[in-house]
Amino acid sequence: MKPNHISQINQVKEAVEEVNVQNIYFVACGGSLASLSTGDYFIDRELSIPSKAMTSNEFIHTNPKGLGENSVVILRSHSGTTPETVKAATFAREKGAITIAISIDEQSPLCKEAEYTVHYNYKDGSDAIDGEIGVYFTLLFSLLNVLAPNEKYERVLDQLNKLESLFESNKKLTYDTAFNFGKRNKREKLIYTMASGAYYHQAYSFTSCLLMEMLWINSNAIHSGEYFHGPFEITDFDVPFLIIKGEGPTRPLDERAISFAEKFSENVEVVDITKLDYSGIDEDLKEYFGPALAGVVLRQYADGLSEHTGHPLSVRRYMWKMDY
Amino acid sequence: MKPNHISQINQVKEAVEEVNVQNIYFVACGGSLASLSTGDYFIDRELSIPSKAMTSNEFIHTNPKGLGENSVVILRSHSGTTPETVKAATFAREKGAITIAISIDEQSPLCKEAEYTVHYNYKDGSDAIDGEIGVYFTLLFSLLNVLAPNEKYERVLDQLNKLESLFESNKKLTYDTAFNFGKRNKREKLIYTMASGAYYHQAYSFTSCLLMEMLWINSNAIHSGEYFHGPFEITDFDVPFLIIKGEGPTRPLDERAISFAEKFSENVEVVDITKLDYSGIDEDLKEYFGPALAGVVLRQYADGLSEHTGHPLSVRRYMWKMDY
Repeated sequence: MKPNHISQINQVKEAVEEVNVQNIYFVACGGSLASLSTGDYFIDRELSIPSKAMTSNEFIHTNPKGLGENSVVILRSHSGTTPETVKAATFAREKGAITIAISIDEQSPLCKEAEYTVHYNYKDGSDAIDGEIGVYFTLLFSLLNVLAPNEKYERVLDQLNKLESLFESNKKLTYDTAFNFGKRNKREKLIYTMASGAYYHQAYSFTSCLLMEMLWINSNAIHSGEYFHGPFEITDFDVPFLIIKGEGPTRPLDERAISFAEKFSENVEVVDITKLDYSGIDEDLKEYFGPALAGVVLRQYADGLSEHTGHPLSVRRYMWKMDY
Repeated sequence: MKPNHISQINQVKEAVEEVNVQNIYFVACGGSLASLSTGDYFIDRELSIPSKAMTSNEFIHTNPKGLGENSVVILRSHSGTTPETVKAATFAREKGAITIAISIDEQSPLCKEAEYTVHYNYKDGSDAIDGEIGVYFTLLFSLLNVLAPNEKYERVLDQLNKLESLFESNKKLTYDTAFNFGKRNKREKLIYTMASGAYYHQAYSFTSCLLMEMLWINSNAIHSGEYFHGPFEITDFDVPFLIIKGEGPTRPLDERAISFAEKFSENVEVVDITKLDYSGIDEDLKEYFGPALAGVVLRQYADGLSEHTGHPLSVRRYMWKMDY
């Protein structure tokens, strides 16, 4: 039996083909917003159709004037229950937009509110192509291929079946480095992250969800291009930075930031995405696969901190414990 | 003699009227980007024409596909010398976009690279209407009035002449509170800021340029809507927050964040923008004026920290002192 999401994505493609798409909104909260924002980045680069990523409640309350029958709104919530994102689906649907919900639970409120559902598997032992990144990238490059057909996108869709083996090989490749980072930084109460382009959202996610939420470590995800316009003054010999050196056109921004940070801080960890394993991926497609690989690699840096601080990533003081 | 910027803005209006504007980009770095982003927010709300705010080097390297002859690119650099922003002007102009440079120096590289220049006065004793906020808001609401004529915008343009007196009255109104904040927080090494909507950019600017750059205090500007999706787990009885309670449609997001933060932190400072003086401003225009007033009020919070920490806002360790 073919996985569910293939037929679901085909339905989305048909719906999008029937509309003169004027804009695309990516709407979610926290880590889900960060994941979707990779799409915002690629659409900026690849399409003349405008896109915007917004946190769900800002989307509803700002009430963008461009939202309407020619809009595509992609929403995501892991459980499909995030109240703001469910409301955003209702809001966008009432405006006549094509609404697409991404979640692990097809029966969730979000999937019920949105017109289209795209389901992904989670921790059930299935291949990465059917997991959150595989499914989202399948959706994204399928949409790109509908809106601006290109043989490149077909190759991306084809090579996504390498994700499973690349996740495994890259986890092995970075395990020791990541756990050493955790060991060296276990006493740190603040760690800055930095990145640009598609990777900025990885830094944002690492800062918000892994450092602040799961590890209670203070942080701020600084854009490599913005670093020199204020934030760099905080740099000092003992200020820790975790910097993503991206694979893609904004890499020179990261290189410049790393070069400066390394001059004045003795604690700069560089995660170089070009050094990862890309076996089976065409050279010209690496910039699309880098962001897909970065997440699993960064997760190991959080695992390393968790191991050495003795602070499990599952501990919360507020989330799931009370109404807010 | 009429101030220079009026005729300059008239030239911009004429240029924009002649083009079928497909998108608007706001391009700058740091505090200048934060200022311009207010325009991105209002265009989202008021126009169906898409807009995007991007840091200059990300704009160049990402190379947005939508950028072309039907684009308007608004750039800003206080001195007009920020290299990335000068390059962004060249880049956008080569793509055929209408380029508008905002700066204090009409002879600066930025103003020379851009097709149109809008000049503002700075610390020369002239009225606020001719200063950075007065001139930028005049440009912004003039453009809105060209792209989607509305008597509301004409009233905004008319009432901008109240800015000078409102800056003065609101500085007096918030002086004691701001300096007390500085006194109470002078030992803090980390202060989080939070806001939403148009005010998010004020929080970003306060975090990047005032706390991190000028005061060397660690910070992160958290979006009020994102707070509950990760960052709120960092909240504790002794974690300081400076939260902007906006005047405008996203205020409920701030109220929710404040209500939570106040429950678990004993150090939450709320800057309520509705409590400011709006004498002479029509009730339905307050949401446009709030962001114009917020900056001068927030500046006093930095002045208060500077006073009580003995750390002048003019001190830098890297900026202006070396090449980077």
